[in-house]
Amino acid sequence: MNSKQVAGERAVEYVEDGMIVGLGSGSTAFFAIQKIGERVSQGLKIKGVCTSENTRMLAEQWNIPYTDINDVDHIDLTIDGADEIDPYGNGIKGGGGALLFEKIVASNSKQIIWVVEQKKLVDRLGAFPLPVEILPFGYKHSLGALAEMGISPSLRMSGEETFTTDGGHFIADIQIGKILDHEELDRNLKQIPGIIENGLFLNLVNKVIVANDDEVDIITFR
Amino acid sequence: MNSKQVAGERAVEYVEDGMIVGLGSGSTAFFAIQKIGERVSQGLKIKGVCTSENTRMLAEQWNIPYTDINDVDHIDLTIDGADEIDPYGNGIKGGGGALLFEKIVASNSKQIIWVVEQKKLVDRLGAFPLPVEILPFGYKHSLGALAEMGISPSLRMSGEETFTTDGGHFIADIQIGKILDHEELDRNLKQIPGIIENGLFLNLVNKVIVANDDEVDIITFR
Repeated sequence: MNSKQVAGERAVEYVEDGMIVGLGSGSTAFFAIQKIGERVSQGLKIKGVCTSENTRMLAEQWNIPYTDINDVDHIDLTIDGADEIDPYGNGIKGGGGALLFEKIVASNSKQIIWVVEQKKLVDRLGAFPLPVEILPFGYKHSLGALAEMGISPSLRMSGEETFTTDGGHFIADIQIGKILDHEELDRNLKQIPGIIENGLFLNLVNKVIVANDDEVDIITFR
Repeated sequence: MNSKQVAGERAVEYVEDGMIVGLGSGSTAFFAIQKIGERVSQGLKIKGVCTSENTRMLAEQWNIPYTDINDVDHIDLTIDGADEIDPYGNGIKGGGGALLFEKIVASNSKQIIWVVEQKKLVDRLGAFPLPVEILPFGYKHSLGALAEMGISPSLRMSGEETFTTDGGHFIADIQIGKILDHEELDRNLKQIPGIIENGLFLNLVNKVIVANDDEVDIITFR
């Protein structure tokens, strides 16, 4: 069992009967969802809320009951991955392109657990390019507005095509170096019409489960 | 000729040969677009950028050449309507539901002219419900977040169906009373994931052409 799997499965110990569970996206969330599927097959009663089309297909595959986010009035616990986490529990997400739905699910979750490998823990966010979700209408101008902020944006591609999110938007990955003021960057990005969301997840996560070879570390933030 | 038409046509006097012109949406912009079509038929050379599917159809109908916003590097002049304008030239737009594309076009325009009837000029914004554009994914939670801000949102309907924008989103019209701090409200709305844009157009318009019976008043802001 690799360390991602050990940590992903550890996160599922927090899932209890009757919960509405946010199902994250990406390679680490994969193992958590697989484990939830195993527990569902053994009688666990939960309802999933999916953060991406990929996740919905996994839930389907493992017979995890799921529902539309608009059909629940809250989410009890969300298990997801992250691309970088700083010592205050702020993170960058969206390497897989699901940041918008992930952020909406996270913002409506009572508890959030992120599962990550040790190397995702950083002193300061920003080495990982920050994904920014952009409306196709006028996207070249949105990229221009980022460039004017002194940020160099790179439109994410998928082979020869522009990468498109489940919401039908584009992603720009921006190199910001070490971020000094997360809140300010978040506010400034949101001032650009056409920029829908960004991968800064601030003051959201409750617990981080860190995969560290064969063992896990658990950090509790709030 | 009604007063909207007089004012709409007056705005078109600012359109010059060779310009890239943002074509607004709504009943007042309609008359401006019609007049632009007339001038194009007489030899005016411009290229339009449309702010809505309705406007695109009007441009088509009057043989106004138009192009995708991503195919131009700027817009010289945008002519549009507004639902309320305060004495500082801040406005509320989006009664027609085109606010998102209108704001992207406005933000990339060198000059913006709004054409309105006299009654749209107000001492303070907020009697007109502020339109907020919302992602369908999790929209019920976004409405809940607005309610938590003390705002009472009303999901816009189109007959029995939820009204859907050209971008595929929903609109909530929010009653905010007289807005005291526009910038703060704008920032707070943008902090809700799932809220894509709102109808506050702050510090954008250059000139307002006011339809006042048979004459027009022209107010220059910046």
